Amino acid sequence: MNNVIAVDIGGTHLRAACYLNGQTKPSAQNRIRTLADQPGSFKRLLETIESVFPKNDSVSAIGVASPGPLNPHSGVLISPPNNKELHNFPLTEKLAEHFGVPVFLDNDANLACLSEWKFGAGQGHANVLYLTVSTGIGGGAIVNNQLLQGFHGLGAELGHIIIDPNGPLCGCGKHGHLESFSSGPAIVRYVREQIEVGTKTTLLSDPSLSPLQIAEAALKGDALAISAFDRAGYYLGIAVANFLASFDPSILIFGGGVSQTGDLLFKPFHKSLKEHIFDLHYLENLIITKAALGDDAGLYGARALAEMKLNSI
Amino acid sequence: MNNVIAVDIGGTHLRAACYLNGQTKPSAQNRIRTLADQPGSFKRLLETIESVFPKNDSVSAIGVASPGPLNPHSGVLISPPNNKELHNFPLTEKLAEHFGVPVFLDNDANLACLSEWKFGAGQGHANVLYLTVSTGIGGGAIVNNQLLQGFHGLGAELGHIIIDPNGPLCGCGKHGHLESFSSGPAIVRYVREQIEVGTKTTLLSDPSLSPLQIAEAALKGDALAISAFDRAGYYLGIAVANFLASFDPSILIFGGGVSQTGDLLFKPFHKSLKEHIFDLHYLENLIITKAALGDDAGLYGARALAEMKLNSI
Repeated sequence: MNNVIAVDIGGTHLRAACYLNGQTKPSAQNRIRTLADQPGSFKRLLETIESVFPKNDSVSAIGVASPGPLNPHSGVLISPPNNKELHNFPLTEKLAEHFGVPVFLDNDANLACLSEWKFGAGQGHANVLYLTVSTGIGGGAIVNNQLLQGFHGLGAELGHIIIDPNGPLCGCGKHGHLESFSSGPAIVRYVREQIEVGTKTTLLSDPSLSPLQIAEAALKGDALAISAFDRAGYYLGIAVANFLASFDPSILIFGGGVSQTGDLLFKPFHKSLKEHIFDLHYLENLIITKAALGDDAGLYGARALAEMKLNSI
Repeated sequence: MNNVIAVDIGGTHLRAACYLNGQTKPSAQNRIRTLADQPGSFKRLLETIESVFPKNDSVSAIGVASPGPLNPHSGVLISPPNNKELHNFPLTEKLAEHFGVPVFLDNDANLACLSEWKFGAGQGHANVLYLTVSTGIGGGAIVNNQLLQGFHGLGAELGHIIIDPNGPLCGCGKHGHLESFSSGPAIVRYVREQIEVGTKTTLLSDPSLSPLQIAEAALKGDALAISAFDRAGYYLGIAVANFLASFDPSILIFGGGVSQTGDLLFKPFHKSLKEHIFDLHYLENLIITKAALGDDAGLYGARALAEMKLNSI
């Protein structure tokens, strides 16, 4: 087995850990605040990796998980959120130059899928689908025990599947994507629009309105809040019907904050999925479950990526 | 290398061929009419395979391509078109029993994809997407140099992806599938509906109205006929935008009769694809082309399936 370093460039925290000889527990780990909008991002990244680098041992590879968009084949970060310093930044090249070892990169959703398959809820499944429902919606797929990365490294961008060509505007500038119906901001936007046209609710359309507030109102019986989750779940069900017809997995794993809202989202989701799936065989013995690894998914995924790439060299 | 027999249960013809020791040319081949609606289907199948079976040599496996729905894992034909005799028929089990060799089965669209990847337009590509646009719309995908079959053997059923949840009724009983917008019968249905509401055209809404007649009228300038292909291409573009975001292939291969109509379908298709793809990187160096193997795709795919399964045992 090899020694690898895993790095997770998260929205709030930057984490690194060193795994010696395939061991489960890291020999060293470090976590600092990401501070994406402050200067010195790359320097902080170098220092964090250096802090876990083994003193008397070599490292075979470094794996890095980062929010996209990015190109896993070229190792270039395209436009990480809030971080202008690292726009179009050749991350793997720069890190490889500095540390003298091969560096591998992929986006957080793909690596969460990879880590759930290798270490979490998806263990033992040859065909896994992972969806994170949060501020955005991201996806990842394992097909025949391999991560689907795609020719341009843009596979399984499942938040940007068109569900209704005449649907709402998505953050990416196109219309009717899953993300424009079922993400956190989409749920908030729907509530605001309904308040504007006079729908009665206990909620206020102030700038701080959040999916969590809407979920709390729904649990107290607010009809608008309930309908907002009904709608999100309905469209999520249509999207997942499409994903099953495409990938036919044996397990579907949900991560992300919005998918923590339980029945509010998942009851209408299941109803819609059953209504829209064109062949009920897809649902036979299909496991639908939550991600098992939580905050560690990125780090574990970065580790799995490094080990996977080393094995395929 | 192994000796394998390939069988293609086509709509009109039943074909079998024997390939000795990995050779390109068959040592024997036979082709008879399928006559799916006439008794004796399985007997005809046995006789056709027997007629190509080598006299003085053993066979390692038999591969079979058949129209779906079917289960490639259990080897059961579920409901092949027009053939009640073979409904819920354990085909691979029955053939294995008779010939004493392992038998492998998959649907014609998956195997056309596999054959185009191994012998046709998709050679050398690790990620291939195949679409057949005809009476129905079928799909197949190669991901990381492996055929995507899926947990239930229902992967890449791309004709039944929902493009618009409020769209037309599909042959499968659900609404707004790609097949309900862009297949041959969908094009004919649209023209009929438009004639009914008084749209002017040179076409007659008689029972024999065909996609070919509509294509001919479009080439002569008939506005309704042109709009029918515009519409089919528009929705095909939306669907393919979704498929690229899911699979991110390096090549997209079109088979099937409707995809032979050239610019009539593909001009509006390309326009719509560019309009709907959420990241233009997907289109960089993406090859969009026609299937290379024509009528032989099923037979070659059945051969490739048998060889693939033998290699993975």
